[in-house]
Amino acid sequence: MPDTETKATEVTFEDIRGAAERIRPIAQRTPVMTSHSFNAESGAEAFFKCENLQKGGAFKIRGASNFLLSMPKDDLVRGVVAYSSGNHAQAVAIAAQTLGVPATLAMPEDAPRSKVDATRARGARIVTYNRFTEDRVAIGKRVAAETNATIVPPFDHPWTIAGAGTTGLELLEQVPDLDALVVPVGGGGLLSGSSIAAKHLRPEIRIFGVEPADGNDTYLSFAAGKRVEIPAPQTIADGLRSQMPGKLTFPILRRNVEQIVLVSEDEIRATVRFLLLRMKILVEPSGAVSAAALLFKKLPPSLRRVGVVLSGGNVDYEQLARF
Amino acid sequence: MPDTETKATEVTFEDIRGAAERIRPIAQRTPVMTSHSFNAESGAEAFFKCENLQKGGAFKIRGASNFLLSMPKDDLVRGVVAYSSGNHAQAVAIAAQTLGVPATLAMPEDAPRSKVDATRARGARIVTYNRFTEDRVAIGKRVAAETNATIVPPFDHPWTIAGAGTTGLELLEQVPDLDALVVPVGGGGLLSGSSIAAKHLRPEIRIFGVEPADGNDTYLSFAAGKRVEIPAPQTIADGLRSQMPGKLTFPILRRNVEQIVLVSEDEIRATVRFLLLRMKILVEPSGAVSAAALLFKKLPPSLRRVGVVLSGGNVDYEQLARF
Repeated sequence: MPDTETKATEVTFEDIRGAAERIRPIAQRTPVMTSHSFNAESGAEAFFKCENLQKGGAFKIRGASNFLLSMPKDDLVRGVVAYSSGNHAQAVAIAAQTLGVPATLAMPEDAPRSKVDATRARGARIVTYNRFTEDRVAIGKRVAAETNATIVPPFDHPWTIAGAGTTGLELLEQVPDLDALVVPVGGGGLLSGSSIAAKHLRPEIRIFGVEPADGNDTYLSFAAGKRVEIPAPQTIADGLRSQMPGKLTFPILRRNVEQIVLVSEDEIRATVRFLLLRMKILVEPSGAVSAAALLFKKLPPSLRRVGVVLSGGNVDYEQLARF
Repeated sequence: MPDTETKATEVTFEDIRGAAERIRPIAQRTPVMTSHSFNAESGAEAFFKCENLQKGGAFKIRGASNFLLSMPKDDLVRGVVAYSSGNHAQAVAIAAQTLGVPATLAMPEDAPRSKVDATRARGARIVTYNRFTEDRVAIGKRVAAETNATIVPPFDHPWTIAGAGTTGLELLEQVPDLDALVVPVGGGGLLSGSSIAAKHLRPEIRIFGVEPADGNDTYLSFAAGKRVEIPAPQTIADGLRSQMPGKLTFPILRRNVEQIVLVSEDEIRATVRFLLLRMKILVEPSGAVSAAALLFKKLPPSLRRVGVVLSGGNVDYEQLARF
C-alpha cells in the first residue's frame, strides 16, 4: 500500500490555486446565491456558496478529485479505497469513475439503500461491514493492502485540504469584499482549506466555524487549546459526527479561525426548513449549520457581508419526510 | 373603476423589452441552472430558468409589477385589487408594497394560513369569501368599485403578458442558441409572452406548452381550434387549474406554439422529487410540468438544447410532507 502520510503537511495558498486548476475538469464552479428574506431575518447580507449544487451533491468532490489527481500515476492505476457511508465515498466513486480507475468503498451493512445504490451506479466495488462489531479503518486498510490500492483520507491530508479549500478560493473570487466567512466543521478539512485561501486573498476577513452542539469536538478543542476526543455524536448533521479535529487541520484552524460557534438540533432543523421553503434550495443538516449560526444570531452582530458555505445537499427521501 | 380592458391587445417584442426595463427594480434576473443527472435521464441538454428563485417564489411578480408600473399614476395611487389564493396575489402584494400603494386581495376563507399570513405581511388588506357560495370575480369587482381601485388581471392583459414574457426574453439572452422552449400553461400568460420574445430573438426556435392531463383546457382548445372551457380541474398543479385559455393569450399561443403536451399527476410528482432530491431545488407542481415533459419524453426526441421554465417554487409545509 503506497504511503501518502509522509507528504508535506503544510498547505499553502499556491497548493489551493494548483488544486483549483487540477480539479476544473471534474468539480463544478458552484453559484453564489443571495436572499432578501434570509437577510431580513438575519440582519446581515449573506452570500451563499452553494456546494449543495456541486457534483455528487457536496463539496467532497473537490478534495477527492484533487487527491486522485495528485497521486503518482503508478499508484493511481492500482485504484483507491474509501471508508464512509456518506458524501466522501460518493465523491471518491465519482472521481475514480471519471479518471477510469477502480474504487472500493467500505460501507456499513445498514447504510441507506439509496446511498449504496448511488455509489454502485458510479461503478465502485462495495465491501460491507458491520459497524457495531467491525472497525472500518481496519477494513479499509485490509482492502487497500489486498489490492495494493491507496486509501483516500476524508479530510486530514494536505491534498484533501487543498482541494476542499478551493471552495473558499472560489467564493472570494466571486465576492471579494466579504467581512466574514462561515463554514461547517466536521473534521475541519473544508474550514481549514477555505480559511487559508480566504486569509491570503483578504487578510482582514473574520473566519468562523460552526458545529452542532451535539458534535462539539472542535469547540472543546479550541477551549482546551489541544485536540479533544468526544463520544460518538448523534446529531442529525450526520456529516459532522467527527469525534476529534484532524492532526493537520487543527493547527490551521487555531491560526485562522476566530471562534467556533454551536447550533442546536432545533436550530438546524428550522434552518433546513427556511432554506427549503423560503429560498427553495435543499441543503442537508450538516450543510446548513453555517446558515443556522447567522439566522439564530450566534455570530458577532457587527458583521455585514458574510460568506456562508452550504456544504452539501444530500438528504434521502425518508430523512426529508421526517422534517 | 378605471377600465384597463380597452388598452391595445397586441403584445410586441418592444412591449416586452420595455417591461424588462420597467420591472428591473422589482423583479430579479433569475439564474439558469443545468444538471448532468437530468440530462442523463432525459437525453437532452436542459437549461432551467429558475423562476422558483424569483422574488415571491414565482414568475408572477413580472406581470404584476409591469402592470402596476404601466398604470396611469392617478389610478395607481388609488390602489389595486386581485382575487387569487396563489402566486398572483402574493406578487400583487409585493409590487404594491414596493411602490407604496394600497392593495386589497380577495382570498377564500379556507386558503392555507401560511399564504394568508405571507400576503398580510406584505401590507395588503385581505377580504375573505366563501369559495363555494360566493363569486370571486364579483367580490373583486365590488371591492374595486368601493375603493376606486384597479383590478390586476392574472394573465389576460397586454401588460401582464408583456411582464411575464420577460422570462423568455431573459432566458434567450442567457442561452441564445436554444432549439426549443418548454413552458407550463395555466391561463397562458407566461407561455404567450415568452413565445413572442423567443420567436423574435430566434425565429427557428420550437415552442411547447405543457399542461397537466387533468387541466387540459389549452390542449383541447388547440384540438378544437377555438377556446374550450373545461370543468374545474383537481390537479395537484394548483397554479394550472385554469378552465379556459385567455382571449388574448390563445391567439398568440396558436401562432407561436407547436404543440401542447400533457403530463400525468404521477409524472408531475416524480419530477418534483427528482428536482428536489437530485438537483436540490424546490419547484412547485405547477412549475415542474415543463421538466416533467422532458423527463418523461413527451417532446420530439430530436430536441438537443432545451430551455425549460420552472415557473414557481411555492409549496407549503403540509403539501411537501404529503410528497
